[in-house]
Amino acid sequence: MLIDEDHIIGVLKNAYPQFIGDDAAVFSEHDQIVISKDLLVEDVHFRRHYQSPESLARKALAVNLSDIAAMGATPFAVLLGLSAAAEDKIFVDTFLQAFIEACREENVILMGGDTTRAPSNQLFLSLTILGRGHPQTLKYRHTAKINDLIYVAGPLGHAHLGFTALEANRPGFEDYKAHFLNPKARLAEGIWLANQPHVHAMMDLSDGLWVDLNKLLQASKCSALLSVEKISPSENELKAYQDLGLNPIETRLTGGEDYALLFTATAEKSLSLRTQFEAQFGYPLLQIGQIIASNERHDIQLLKENQPVTLALQPFNHFA
Amino acid sequence: MLIDEDHIIGVLKNAYPQFIGDDAAVFSEHDQIVISKDLLVEDVHFRRHYQSPESLARKALAVNLSDIAAMGATPFAVLLGLSAAAEDKIFVDTFLQAFIEACREENVILMGGDTTRAPSNQLFLSLTILGRGHPQTLKYRHTAKINDLIYVAGPLGHAHLGFTALEANRPGFEDYKAHFLNPKARLAEGIWLANQPHVHAMMDLSDGLWVDLNKLLQASKCSALLSVEKISPSENELKAYQDLGLNPIETRLTGGEDYALLFTATAEKSLSLRTQFEAQFGYPLLQIGQIIASNERHDIQLLKENQPVTLALQPFNHFA
Repeated sequence: MLIDEDHIIGVLKNAYPQFIGDDAAVFSEHDQIVISKDLLVEDVHFRRHYQSPESLARKALAVNLSDIAAMGATPFAVLLGLSAAAEDKIFVDTFLQAFIEACREENVILMGGDTTRAPSNQLFLSLTILGRGHPQTLKYRHTAKINDLIYVAGPLGHAHLGFTALEANRPGFEDYKAHFLNPKARLAEGIWLANQPHVHAMMDLSDGLWVDLNKLLQASKCSALLSVEKISPSENELKAYQDLGLNPIETRLTGGEDYALLFTATAEKSLSLRTQFEAQFGYPLLQIGQIIASNERHDIQLLKENQPVTLALQPFNHFA
Repeated sequence: MLIDEDHIIGVLKNAYPQFIGDDAAVFSEHDQIVISKDLLVEDVHFRRHYQSPESLARKALAVNLSDIAAMGATPFAVLLGLSAAAEDKIFVDTFLQAFIEACREENVILMGGDTTRAPSNQLFLSLTILGRGHPQTLKYRHTAKINDLIYVAGPLGHAHLGFTALEANRPGFEDYKAHFLNPKARLAEGIWLANQPHVHAMMDLSDGLWVDLNKLLQASKCSALLSVEKISPSENELKAYQDLGLNPIETRLTGGEDYALLFTATAEKSLSLRTQFEAQFGYPLLQIGQIIASNERHDIQLLKENQPVTLALQPFNHFA
């Protein structure tokens, strides 16, 4: 069976009769609008032999929702671009149904999009996500302040553990595999954190803590002290790193696709922030370091037992 | 030289320091917002051996602007998704510079996007375009009325003539080639037509008149009488069709990528509409048929010397 655009549009129109059909979708919005675009490309971001169309659909949406969460905004609509080989009809149909279902569960309207034949066998996904937020509470990368403490909401390195196990075709590691295959956007956390006035800067972790924190530092024109002890894994996690032959500290610094939230907040409010967050969300915040002033170079200074250490880190690059 | 995401983002950030950098771009808007997404895929929509990176950048933007024009809206922002092979650095750099320049010329802010490595040699482009419009003047596909006359603003079939000449590697046909390689979005026409209360339904012609008019008829739940005489080419055009071995009527009905505007308007105001349009834009409107009532099947009835004719038409499908 061959895919064709009319068929795909028919499936989408059936789910969203009011929105899909014109040259563009129309809406109005009184809050500020937050918009982001993410590409997911087969054999660059995912592999079909261990990612089902259902989980790919959920992941594609989650990855985009995570960008909205990172701004402290609420998602309301998405546009889907899909390029697939003509032979992919069954995969694409299953993907579309799961995508529509995921949009409904997340209260996000599938507002439009485009589909096209792919010139090769690789599937290409392009999502545009829209959210709304209040000008007073939206969070950015450039707003970290000197002496802020640096926090992570969500686990570090788990997605990379899962990814490594999947690539090596290793049985077990199911929780870690699920972190890679079915990440969750931390929308509730993002909105809650956005409403804390002592939280200053925020972003999501997609490219790995090292790369992403560096982006935040560049944007905020400051540096960071990062404590190796504070990013060390638990005993239980350590075993997984050992089993998979991964360096735990390096992996937690560079492993991609965590979709945890990275943010900075006033040091004075640390205890109440941590207590309230854990009471609200049932897991603790990880406090990993502190923002410090810097002149020309805005970078991360890694400390081990309070002494500077240097690591030769390779940024996460999927199947590179 | 290899492309890398940091480099691409650097180029874009340099051009738009205020917008690119956070997980999402933020804006606010009091009018209604019009949003659309279009994919352009190498060897599906374009070929690099005759499409320069500069003209590809302009075409990618124009194709998206045309969707905004078709709604009678004014574009204000775009997001760019780009997936390219690592070896494509020079092509991508030239593309990006031309894209930034084209955005500036069209007063469109490049608000964000995503770049990624491509798994094959093919370039993938995914654009999301945003426009604003007034609720009272935006035009849709579902609003055609019985007895409306059907008009086209812009030439029919020229892009397909150019496309055919390019594919056959034929010298000459420069104007037609330009229609395919460097289409222009009819933004001024779209806004002007949107402000005419007697214009009822509108869309742009990207998939060919036959396919697109059918979409308008489905959306508006009516049928259309289309006159073969009125879509016949001029003497001059006829020669190009003959030289390239194309059937003129079939090509004008099915040739894609015209990016002309297709719209319907009250028959009574036809003369003043046509006169004013030509005075404003310097070229005549093509009046090609009329909207008629229909029951179950909403389709096109082709007339030749006022007698029904049937054509076996193949929809335009680029390099299929």
